[in-house]
Amino acid sequence: MLDDPMRNLSQALGLMDVGTPCLLLDRDRMDRNVRRLRQRLDRLGVTLRPHLKTAKSVDAAQQVMMSPSGPATVSTLKEAEQFADAGVRDLIYAVGVSPDKIDRILALRARGVDLAVTLDTVDQARAVAEASRRTGDPIPALIEIDCDGHRSGVLPADGATLVRIARSLEDGGRLRGVLTHAGASYGAVGDDALRHCAEVERASAVEAATLLREAGFACPVVSVGSTPTAHFAEALDGVTEVRAGVFVFFDLVMAGIGVCSIDEIALSVLATVIGHQPEKGWILVDAGWMAMSRDRGTSKQRIDQGYGLVCDINGKPFGDLILSDANQEHGIIALRPGTDARLPDLPIGTRVRILPNHACATGAQHGAYHVMRSGSDKIEAVWPRFGGW
Amino acid sequence: MLDDPMRNLSQALGLMDVGTPCLLLDRDRMDRNVRRLRQRLDRLGVTLRPHLKTAKSVDAAQQVMMSPSGPATVSTLKEAEQFADAGVRDLIYAVGVSPDKIDRILALRARGVDLAVTLDTVDQARAVAEASRRTGDPIPALIEIDCDGHRSGVLPADGATLVRIARSLEDGGRLRGVLTHAGASYGAVGDDALRHCAEVERASAVEAATLLREAGFACPVVSVGSTPTAHFAEALDGVTEVRAGVFVFFDLVMAGIGVCSIDEIALSVLATVIGHQPEKGWILVDAGWMAMSRDRGTSKQRIDQGYGLVCDINGKPFGDLILSDANQEHGIIALRPGTDARLPDLPIGTRVRILPNHACATGAQHGAYHVMRSGSDKIEAVWPRFGGW
Repeated sequence: MLDDPMRNLSQALGLMDVGTPCLLLDRDRMDRNVRRLRQRLDRLGVTLRPHLKTAKSVDAAQQVMMSPSGPATVSTLKEAEQFADAGVRDLIYAVGVSPDKIDRILALRARGVDLAVTLDTVDQARAVAEASRRTGDPIPALIEIDCDGHRSGVLPADGATLVRIARSLEDGGRLRGVLTHAGASYGAVGDDALRHCAEVERASAVEAATLLREAGFACPVVSVGSTPTAHFAEALDGVTEVRAGVFVFFDLVMAGIGVCSIDEIALSVLATVIGHQPEKGWILVDAGWMAMSRDRGTSKQRIDQGYGLVCDINGKPFGDLILSDANQEHGIIALRPGTDARLPDLPIGTRVRILPNHACATGAQHGAYHVMRSGSDKIEAVWPRFGGW
Repeated sequence: MLDDPMRNLSQALGLMDVGTPCLLLDRDRMDRNVRRLRQRLDRLGVTLRPHLKTAKSVDAAQQVMMSPSGPATVSTLKEAEQFADAGVRDLIYAVGVSPDKIDRILALRARGVDLAVTLDTVDQARAVAEASRRTGDPIPALIEIDCDGHRSGVLPADGATLVRIARSLEDGGRLRGVLTHAGASYGAVGDDALRHCAEVERASAVEAATLLREAGFACPVVSVGSTPTAHFAEALDGVTEVRAGVFVFFDLVMAGIGVCSIDEIALSVLATVIGHQPEKGWILVDAGWMAMSRDRGTSKQRIDQGYGLVCDINGKPFGDLILSDANQEHGIIALRPGTDARLPDLPIGTRVRILPNHACATGAQHGAYHVMRSGSDKIEAVWPRFGGW
């Protein structure tokens, strides 16, 4: 049993021995995914600053970052603290900062971590500047730009607001640059739409940086990124770095919009058959929403994958077999409506692997990655994950 | 900071001091919810066997169980092991058992835990019987009954299958009884529909038990339960115990079908305002789907609560203000479409509380409950939660 996951298993467990449900990570696929984006960004001449909110694991982060000290992106201060403990020294906290979080940020900076914050209002800039003056530590900040109306940020052409924020900030703090995230890219489908999202993301960030520079601010960093745009940007002129997270593992949502293929998805949930309802065409497994998450990210895509796509124990999809519904610890496997495929014969105790809709959400339900190689049935390591804030 | 939650805080933290997002538990509301169902089941003459999959906390379980040793219900063996460590001795594992899990079950039983399993096939019964013979420990099992086509189980009138399973089981194991769960009750709305679900659940379990008894099996336990049916059953003749989980906390889904009122919901997520998009009517907070879960259980109800209903720091709903969308660590607060209400003025740093759609799913995203009293702004205890399998 793996209640207290060890980093390295003294005795290799097989996929039939480990307790289910459990989270499997195909390390060969992960390595290929990381190599693919690194080579791409090398060609485009920008730095990769991976978003570690997807992996939330020191072991996985070490495979993904360009160096053991970073750079990297985080979505919580808990992530910043955990990765700082592991030696990461160059971090952006990419969620808008609130005043109550500044003490923890200062504590990390006092430990030698170059942690930059993100903001998009004068109020936040004033709070950061005030804390910087009080401690004599000019906290670096990036102004978030709203490139596609998806979430937070200043409009890229709103020079007046950008300059007001920058002035408030530099009264103690330091303007590191601008940052944007093309959230709309997750809803784009096909090469043309994705290339368009990437160009909008790039142009928005560069436009805002240009306005700030014209007003006298150096604005050295122009940070963009999402997994879809990182894979479809044709040029990144003016951009200095790209953030992306889910590229490490990929998932069914990314496959649905055309960023990866199904056989590049590195994460799956190992499950065991616990029942049948033959009249309904159902096979029940011990992976419900607690193991898969409640994410239904493919529900509005052309192919609805339910709560996940079902594969055999070796990771080969059965074809049109999905986790069609989920209770907390029960998953219901059924054929996709309208298919000609036949329900496979999977007796009680059979093990299957289920590909997730959304790697970030499914990963968050688990305490560790069970790491294996493509085509192997042995778990070669257990990499702990953390959660919380 | 509460990175390592302590059971009792040496120094009481206030709702403005604790790090956000964090999970709040209003203990007064919880106590009232527990008392309400206990009194109801006392009147109906059945035992309460609470389902601890919702709480996943030893401290919370102690407030909910009839005695420190149980009885209780679990959905994972990890829950069984954690509660066994805390002294619980009477447990039903209410998810269909698979052969690979029997060693862990035997280990718990060898520690003196009366752990019963659930099954609905001859294959499972044979595996349980074989392990029982091998170890000389007759594992008790309940046959799951499918009362409403919702998930697993044998049809209540299918005496032939029931008897085949019981015979296979008693070749070493022990038939403890029958168990059913009215999963369809979560989709019922209004008193009449809920009373009907409760009666179908009761009658199905009693019918199956009667068939087994007529075939010569004692079948002492007749176990039913869901939070909706537990609160609407008018009679429970023939039933020996009721299982329910979410009644401890309640949630927006339960309020939506009429099982509780909004002001009985004991669980909320404390969040901090981190931004505004005034043109869009958005207020951004630091509670996204990682803090709320991806559960959208109210999406098909009459009132869609988005990712949660937004209240002020004291827990009073603003009215028609919901978490309308969520990214991993960003929540977007907006007015419900069509309302006449006005967006409140919530400056950066303001704290709000968000009531969850589904207490089981939201709880699972957090490592602890921050326990407070109704009307108080002090956190009086931190109760650790566990996850995993």
